Amino acid sequence: MAKTKTEKPLILITNDDGITAPGIKALVQAALPFGKVVVVAPDKPQSGMGHAITIGHHLRLTKVDYMEGVEAYACSGTPVDCVKLAVDKVLHRKPTICLSGINHGANHSINVIYSGTMSAALEASIESIPSIGFSLLDLSIEADFTAAAHFAGIIIQKVLADKNLDKHLCLNVNIPKVETKLIKGIKVCKQAYAKYEEKYVERKDPYGKKYYWLTGEFINFDKSKDTDVWALKNNYVSIVPVLFDLTNHIIKEKLMKKWNA
Amino acid sequence: MAKTKTEKPLILITNDDGITAPGIKALVQAALPFGKVVVVAPDKPQSGMGHAITIGHHLRLTKVDYMEGVEAYACSGTPVDCVKLAVDKVLHRKPTICLSGINHGANHSINVIYSGTMSAALEASIESIPSIGFSLLDLSIEADFTAAAHFAGIIIQKVLADKNLDKHLCLNVNIPKVETKLIKGIKVCKQAYAKYEEKYVERKDPYGKKYYWLTGEFINFDKSKDTDVWALKNNYVSIVPVLFDLTNHIIKEKLMKKWNA
Repeated sequence: MAKTKTEKPLILITNDDGITAPGIKALVQAALPFGKVVVVAPDKPQSGMGHAITIGHHLRLTKVDYMEGVEAYACSGTPVDCVKLAVDKVLHRKPTICLSGINHGANHSINVIYSGTMSAALEASIESIPSIGFSLLDLSIEADFTAAAHFAGIIIQKVLADKNLDKHLCLNVNIPKVETKLIKGIKVCKQAYAKYEEKYVERKDPYGKKYYWLTGEFINFDKSKDTDVWALKNNYVSIVPVLFDLTNHIIKEKLMKKWNA
Repeated sequence: MAKTKTEKPLILITNDDGITAPGIKALVQAALPFGKVVVVAPDKPQSGMGHAITIGHHLRLTKVDYMEGVEAYACSGTPVDCVKLAVDKVLHRKPTICLSGINHGANHSINVIYSGTMSAALEASIESIPSIGFSLLDLSIEADFTAAAHFAGIIIQKVLADKNLDKHLCLNVNIPKVETKLIKGIKVCKQAYAKYEEKYVERKDPYGKKYYWLTGEFINFDKSKDTDVWALKNNYVSIVPVLFDLTNHIIKEKLMKKWNA
């Protein structure tokens, strides 16, 4: 049967902070006006899980009471597992769009690679489901998601209204930690080469054995004005379209000349 | 003090199958003629961990007896954790090159994103350490690494000999599961759009509660002849240079025109 024009978009929502995080609830609220929302999100925090998938263990999926009008499931796996399981076992079809977040904390620049939030979005785009990951530059559990939810609504609407939507579209959206009225607008930009310089804290456990804990300092090596880091520093919402084809075409061309027979 | 010409390259080796896997031992053997080898690898299998990092827990690092002339440490974290900890706490400086693998199983096409082997290599390249990830198209613990180790040696030599080495160089090398004499050579190529169509097996535990286990069928949607999947099918060693800047420049240009003020 052909789709009718009145059919509501099916919106899959996930995150990496876990299904009970305030950020995902703010995203569900922002998405509800645009279609039917189904939540499949981790049952515990999964920050920094990147594109990890669970292959050596089984997964559990538990239906939970959530917000009114929203079907929701807690999943024992990673954010990427949530997207895969949602498509195969919950929705039994591709949703119109997949949203991830709103993350408690920044996912600009190199963070896109470590982020469970963005990996879930990227997984959807691999599956030919257009996706958007949202992150607020505030790590706090008590972060104020007002501005982030406002811009999430604007961007969801723009994407759903686009008739020439790329099926592999994946947007990395970051929102600065300021009041809505101070945000100058949205800025489509590129990923900055900015990263953490790691410094592991070395401690001893109560038995005298060493252990290490990751800490680090964020350094921006990219001084150009067309990056996400620049946009955020200047109070814009940054939008970086991201892709899953990691081929480095510049090095490929060079090496093909040297190495291919 | 300036480096002298006779200083041996410092080679960091890791993997995702764990420090005791036959694949990493084959890679250490292949690398030993080229420099001083230090191994920092997971203390247990970490396949499918992608670019996961450990932030909510501490890490352990344990010096272990390994092969003659090789300093080796088992790490309780992910492959990416191994690279970060190795640079900060074991080597106290950047190695000349980082090698990852040899993985028991393919990491061509979309696998580059899920693979702990390739994420470790990519992490090194983020840290400005040129890197190579090696994978053999044989999942078995008893896989024959003769051909893979032979070509690993050839490629390590080529990379170390290149005076114009890009500091962010990261190569994804896959070796077909055939005898060395049947391999036609190496082929620099691009990542194929080939992926798994997931199908979760649904079972019930002894208490009647459902659980799910990931399985899937591999499908190649990319019929062009310049991909890693094509090269491997035609008995070439495939080499895809990969990058950590995920910006989708084509979509970026389109959206900038539409959305930026």
